[in-house]
Formats: sequence, structure tokens, C-alpha cells
Amino acid sequence: MAKKLPATVGCPTELTLDVLSGKWKTIILARLKGGALGYGELRKSIPSLSDKMLTERLRDLEHGGLLERKTRRTDRGRPRTLYALTARGRSLRPVLEALFAWGILSAPQLGIKVRMLDE
Amino acid sequence: MAKKLPATVGCPTELTLDVLSGKWKTIILARLKGGALGYGELRKSIPSLSDKMLTERLRDLEHGGLLERKTRRTDRGRPRTLYALTARGRSLRPVLEALFAWGILSAPQLGIKVRMLDE
Repeated sequence: MAKKLPATVGCPTELTLDVLSGKWKTIILARLKGGALGYGELRKSIPSLSDKMLTERLRDLEHGGLLERKTRRTDRGRPRTLYALTARGRSLRPVLEALFAWGILSAPQLGIKVRMLDE
Repeated sequence: MAKKLPATVGCPTELTLDVLSGKWKTIILARLKGGALGYGELRKSIPSLSDKMLTERLRDLEHGGLLERKTRRTDRGRPRTLYALTARGRSLRPVLEALFAWGILSAPQLGIKVRMLDE
């Protein structure tokens, strides 16, 4: 992702949108803003995203420096991979919170049902 | 745009991203958050967007209830069309401000030049 960023942008908003670049990457970051998650947890929390797409988007986000993989030992001593926001990813928190808040506010006004609110 | 919104979304963040649906609509809204603008002013402020694209995006945003056209008389008595955020469009201000603020913060860190800061 970082490779594709332009050398110059027309405004700061454009830069942020270029970095986020699309709906699913933003939704993955939103899922991780509450803390690190394993692949299976992420996959389950975004059922409309295929394995292929999720894997690709996770790789893009890692290359772009917004998330990192961490390996932890489970109680049984097995390694477990978790996806966590980097410092740069965490700096997007105000953006992610504003997107979430507007959705909460507007869903009833637009007559749209939100399937899960526990992200 | 409003027609294309799904009846159910997976999370509030997804709804907001569906409503914004893409980079250029969000940038147009960002341009208008400081006040109404005429077509020529908007066009000039987003040089990388073609006339065709700008016209289409403006129409989408109007159909989606995020902006409205207002006709005002100029000093010479001619009608002038201005594009202005509706109440729903203005409710996106925290989102637009967060996107702008992150761009300002991150451009120097990412080594990216921002052409104009006067939006």
C-alpha cells in the first residue's frame, strides 16, 4: 500500500483516503481499534469478506505500516498469531471513531439495520 | 446513492463508508464543509477530477441527501448555483475533520507533499 501512495496530494483529506484506500481496509482497522485479534476472530467479525480478500487486505495493511503481526504463546504453548494496530494505525483512531459514531447516528434515520454493534 | 444502500450492514463504520462510497465524494464534501461553493470553484479546487466525474459525483451526493443546490442572485441580478451541505451532510463534519487532521499529521511522516492546505 505504501508504495502506491502519490508523492503529492491535493489536500490532507485525500492523503488519508489514499492511505485507507477502500472500505474493507478501514473496516479491518475499525475491528482492531479495540485490541489485537486472531485471524479467525477477524474473519468471523467480517462475514461478507472472503478469506482471499481478508488475507490480501491484511497484507496491504501490514505493508502500509498500519498493522503488525504478533506471535504469542497460548496456554498450551502453541504459537498464536495476532493482528494489532501499529502506532500509525492507532493514530487513525479519531477517524475510525468518527466513522463509527456517524453510522450509529444515521442508521435509524436512514432506516438501515446494523447487524452487530459490538465491534 | 441512497437507493444503493443495503438494508442491513455489518457495523456502523460500514454504513458510513457505504454512504461516503469512495474517495471523490468524500473530498467534495470536505471542500464544502467550510461553506457553499459554485461549480467553477469546486472544479478548480479538485483539479484531478474531470468535469464528467465531478458532475456525476455531485448528482450522487444530491440524490443521497448530503448536498443541495441553491440558486442565488448575483450583484448583477444573474442566477448563480451554489452547492451546499444539507443538515445530513453537515452531520459528517466530525468525520471530515478527522480525515483532514490525520492527513495533516501524517504527510510529513510519510514524506508526502500536500499541494494545498486552504480547503
